[in-house]
Amino acid sequence: MITVLKQGTTKEERDQLIHWFEEQGVKVHVSVGEYQTILGLIGDTSRIDMEMLELLDIVDKVARITEPFKSANRKFHPEDSKIKIGNTACGAGAFAVIAGPCSVENKEQIEEVAKRVKAAGATMFRGGAFKPRTSPYDFQGMKAEGIELLLEAKKATGLPIVTEIMNANHLPLFEEVDVIQVGARNMQNFELLKELGKTKKTILLKRGLANTMKELLMSAEYIMAGGNENIILCERGVRTFETYTRNTLDLSAVPVLHNLTHLPVIVDPSHATGYAKLVKPMALAAAACGADGLMIEVHNQPSKALCDGAQSLTPDQFDALMDQVQKIREVLS
Amino acid sequence: MITVLKQGTTKEERDQLIHWFEEQGVKVHVSVGEYQTILGLIGDTSRIDMEMLELLDIVDKVARITEPFKSANRKFHPEDSKIKIGNTACGAGAFAVIAGPCSVENKEQIEEVAKRVKAAGATMFRGGAFKPRTSPYDFQGMKAEGIELLLEAKKATGLPIVTEIMNANHLPLFEEVDVIQVGARNMQNFELLKELGKTKKTILLKRGLANTMKELLMSAEYIMAGGNENIILCERGVRTFETYTRNTLDLSAVPVLHNLTHLPVIVDPSHATGYAKLVKPMALAAAACGADGLMIEVHNQPSKALCDGAQSLTPDQFDALMDQVQKIREVLS
Amino acid sequence: MITVLKQGTTKEERDQLIHWFEEQGVKVHVSVGEYQTILGLIGDTSRIDMEMLELLDIVDKVARITEPFKSANRKFHPEDSKIKIGNTACGAGAFAVIAGPCSVENKEQIEEVAKRVKAAGATMFRGGAFKPRTSPYDFQGMKAEGIELLLEAKKATGLPIVTEIMNANHLPLFEEVDVIQVGARNMQNFELLKELGKTKKTILLKRGLANTMKELLMSAEYIMAGGNENIILCERGVRTFETYTRNTLDLSAVPVLHNLTHLPVIVDPSHATGYAKLVKPMALAAAACGADGLMIEVHNQPSKALCDGAQSLTPDQFDALMDQVQKIREVLS
Amino acid sequence: MITVLKQGTTKEERDQLIHWFEEQGVKVHVSVGEYQTILGLIGDTSRIDMEMLELLDIVDKVARITEPFKSANRKFHPEDSKIKIGNTACGAGAFAVIAGPCSVENKEQIEEVAKRVKAAGATMFRGGAFKPRTSPYDFQGMKAEGIELLLEAKKATGLPIVTEIMNANHLPLFEEVDVIQVGARNMQNFELLKELGKTKKTILLKRGLANTMKELLMSAEYIMAGGNENIILCERGVRTFETYTRNTLDLSAVPVLHNLTHLPVIVDPSHATGYAKLVKPMALAAAACGADGLMIEVHNQPSKALCDGAQSLTPDQFDALMDQVQKIREVLS
Repeated sequence: MITVLKQGTTKEERDQLIHWFEEQGVKVHVSVGEYQTILGLIGDTSRIDMEMLELLDIVDKVARITEPFKSANRKFHPEDSKIKIGNTACGAGAFAVIAGPCSVENKEQIEEVAKRVKAAGATMFRGGAFKPRTSPYDFQGMKAEGIELLLEAKKATGLPIVTEIMNANHLPLFEEVDVIQVGARNMQNFELLKELGKTKKTILLKRGLANTMKELLMSAEYIMAGGNENIILCERGVRTFETYTRNTLDLSAVPVLHNLTHLPVIVDPSHATGYAKLVKPMALAAAACGADGLMIEVHNQPSKALCDGAQSLTPDQFDALMDQVQKIREVLS
Repeated sequence: MITVLKQGTTKEERDQLIHWFEEQGVKVHVSVGEYQTILGLIGDTSRIDMEMLELLDIVDKVARITEPFKSANRKFHPEDSKIKIGNTACGAGAFAVIAGPCSVENKEQIEEVAKRVKAAGATMFRGGAFKPRTSPYDFQGMKAEGIELLLEAKKATGLPIVTEIMNANHLPLFEEVDVIQVGARNMQNFELLKELGKTKKTILLKRGLANTMKELLMSAEYIMAGGNENIILCERGVRTFETYTRNTLDLSAVPVLHNLTHLPVIVDPSHATGYAKLVKPMALAAAACGADGLMIEVHNQPSKALCDGAQSLTPDQFDALMDQVQKIREVLS
Repeated sequence: MITVLKQGTTKEERDQLIHWFEEQGVKVHVSVGEYQTILGLIGDTSRIDMEMLELLDIVDKVARITEPFKSANRKFHPEDSKIKIGNTACGAGAFAVIAGPCSVENKEQIEEVAKRVKAAGATMFRGGAFKPRTSPYDFQGMKAEGIELLLEAKKATGLPIVTEIMNANHLPLFEEVDVIQVGARNMQNFELLKELGKTKKTILLKRGLANTMKELLMSAEYIMAGGNENIILCERGVRTFETYTRNTLDLSAVPVLHNLTHLPVIVDPSHATGYAKLVKPMALAAAACGADGLMIEVHNQPSKALCDGAQSLTPDQFDALMDQVQKIREVLS
Repeated sequence: MITVLKQGTTKEERDQLIHWFEEQGVKVHVSVGEYQTILGLIGDTSRIDMEMLELLDIVDKVARITEPFKSANRKFHPEDSKIKIGNTACGAGAFAVIAGPCSVENKEQIEEVAKRVKAAGATMFRGGAFKPRTSPYDFQGMKAEGIELLLEAKKATGLPIVTEIMNANHLPLFEEVDVIQVGARNMQNFELLKELGKTKKTILLKRGLANTMKELLMSAEYIMAGGNENIILCERGVRTFETYTRNTLDLSAVPVLHNLTHLPVIVDPSHATGYAKLVKPMALAAAACGADGLMIEVHNQPSKALCDGAQSLTPDQFDALMDQVQKIREVLS
């Protein structure tokens, strides 16, 4: 970390700051120039609050050389993490395919879709029981009953279950859920993250609509700081001015995150684009740039879906997609 | 609400959809054109899930003519709402000035700043006890102890207290707090909003970093749908590509929201800009475009603040600002 | 096109507007509802100025059903366009690989890189002679001399030449250039587009930093309206709040544009990401989602490049990339 | 300017770089730390190409301490610039009010609006003769004939004339125009900027739709580097995800630019918001945060305007606005 002091800083003020740094356990190299003085901080600076530092009267600029996340940082954990979920996995070469409907609607739907996506090669089954909706008047999900249906599908197919949590108080309902999803709107719900850090569940952490990759990693760090290192990151599009797609899928997040962290990174092309016909090309692109998995909406009757029609694939389309994803992955290997 | 059907929709499919609309209690006007059929929906369409509708096979486009929020909508409540907080108020001509430090740090700080901002004309006192921080390693606030200090300041000055909540489970700690703030990162924490809708507390709802005004109003609607209509909206900047300011303060939100809703709208120039020297011009601009109040960070020793140095005014600067704000408001009246 | 009239519009005002529409050659279907009147416009509405229409006192909303671009529209030209450049092509199955240094620097550089990229499978050679730079003090390119060096490389390798134009007055210098690039900053330099519309040159039109896909197509329409239909569209990243990449590459633009237009769409991962190590994964992703080509920076000594070091591949890296791109394309076929 | 070298940089490589810096006329202070070496550059670094520097193999990070613009920089020119236009001025206490219709339509319109805005206190008259339009099929302006009508209005009222240029080849038509506007879409049309730098005309430079303030100042620098220092900057809104306003007016640009540059800064609330009813509050806000002027669309019959209806004020509304702007300015003085 580099701290540039303002012109006019007195030696006394400077020494006071250096003393404070040393108390935090970091070493300081001072470089006095004609117009400015630069302090180079050496050691574990992750616990130094950069924002507070910048606000000091005598400080002109602060720049980090090392990233402020530590547990998630590849520098301190060079090998890819392989997150194990039941008898499947994600990361370090294991490719996760999480498929299923946007919302759990009824027993028939869940049974049929689960059976079909398993046959096509899905490694986990997803379905929304608690649905975050912009309007309080829109369908909010089947809740506990929805989780029951997912667990029945798990029993029938053996596929681990992925479903979203919106409130830490609901955790008892998630006891048999394999992977707990934190949605984009809750990526910085730090209270929820802290509670999930106390569990041993695998957490699927989605990037917020207007969050940077650094913030995504800091949110992962919240969970990891609590002791839970079972995290899968998920890119699902960011908000831009473009209107032809629901969000702008930022696939460069895959290689960038792979450089920064050892955690696996998957991609959700269904929510990002909002249109079924864009799911296939973007899923193939995600596989091609090295994603560790995909999250795909599949519905047996997209046109009758309660909330996932136009962006859901039919089971037949999903079959065809899986086939090409497999071939793309062979090219990379 | 207008629903445009796709070319090739059969009469049977169309009639089925019309029948469904009528079941929802809305009347349908059909306009058959050469290339498309348009259904105009008349009545209360706020409970129709536009997203689900758009996903139907036969639907090409859906457009709302009326907005999807109802309790917050000025159309159904033409007069400005005046939110009463103790013996002060916000909205319908009442101008709220909420001032105080970013974080509660200690008794001396809180006592001194509260006394000073009251003398300068503040109508409420603010201070953060629970702090949402991007990093788990940054200062997270004094929590319950911080709220205690705020309540002491309330006793000493008579100023109502404003402080942020991050977890509905903390509500018992907020019993004597006058205004509960929902921060930008929790604007779409729907579970929290629902719980706040069950209280009678005044809620200060901040716009999310990348949320539209419509989404802000839908979040207000979540609280109002629960029965709590005591809401103050707060513009605090949105995320853009600009880097000279922390966020981009969107002052046009003030007149736009005034057109759309009867709820009061205040502005927080301190968090939006991130720099003390920008607070005064932006506070004056907020007053000039009709804001119902301001939220200003004031610290007795900005350079020693735990988290709000560079963006905090000194009590003297705050005095001078209040004087000019008052004069600007006289020009408008 | 749908025009919704405001409540309170008189029959006289409405008939006046309908009459005006009919004069523009479009038929009007009127649908009178309880709260609003909707006019459905049938026929060629591309020449109706939607913005002007929206501004009329009596008009509440205007929505297009068909897109405002016509020559570029796939609806009126369903087959993919194949743009021929010398004995190579782009689109309709032909995959273009445009490679070369960011800037033309000297004869040795151009000769060596051109030879190497040709051997690795590039179909066109690129190099910047006129460089748009944010600062007037930065290197502005070798200009006419740079074009000379490119033409020598063309003679030596047979590869068609791609280089950027910034001023229509420079067109005489581009006489032997095969493909004229319009950079992101000039995407809405309408005067330049009009001049290029009068030529028969192939135009490589880059998407602006903050432009929508619709605006990109409208800019293509400017060129096509002048009579020049030889256009290749290029996605090169849009501006967001993310800072780990120079821009955010929007790969969903590839399938979206393919749905909207018959023009070929290529991707420039070098400028979009700004880092050499991101070029390979994003180039593979672009191929996987169906791009009609790639534009890749290659430099013989990236660390000594005048303006393209960190984002340039070495010729060896380019060789390896071409090999995998080819295999990805085989998966899709 | 600070340059951080990568770990593993050899002494030889470092000395080579230091030598190169010294050749550019800057002094170098070396600070060798345990993990990194920092070079502090002292002197005129505005001509060092930061982007090129960052791309060197041995360089980890580069950060500017001083801004890359020089002629526009307040540090080197501490007093406000007062730009004189005929017998009026802008900046250094002089408040410019530029009013008139979006497009020049006909003699009667121009005559009437010019007379009315002069009476209400406008200091300059504006009207678009060349119109940048997204669609080639939309109205492109009256061109030379439009400029003729503006010059007649100038003769009749004595008001200096402001109108937009889109092509340097049109400069002969602008000989008697007082202020040449560069529109948002041409802010980085560097070839146009260079040509304008060779004239002595006052240039009204609008911020691009997705450009930072630093880029705006670099574009001003292009003009100033050519010898023309008569520049007025104009904030007119940036592109965000918000849809209730055409663009998001960034009023914080006014105080930020005032800190960075001595050039005057005006605000265009008409184009930024796109709605007449938002023009007044945002114009007052602009005056309150210290803008050096306003650019306001005024039309005698907004509902019949060719391109500026809904966002234009009537002359009566403009009268009322001017009155309040004057009072706001008195508060500030």
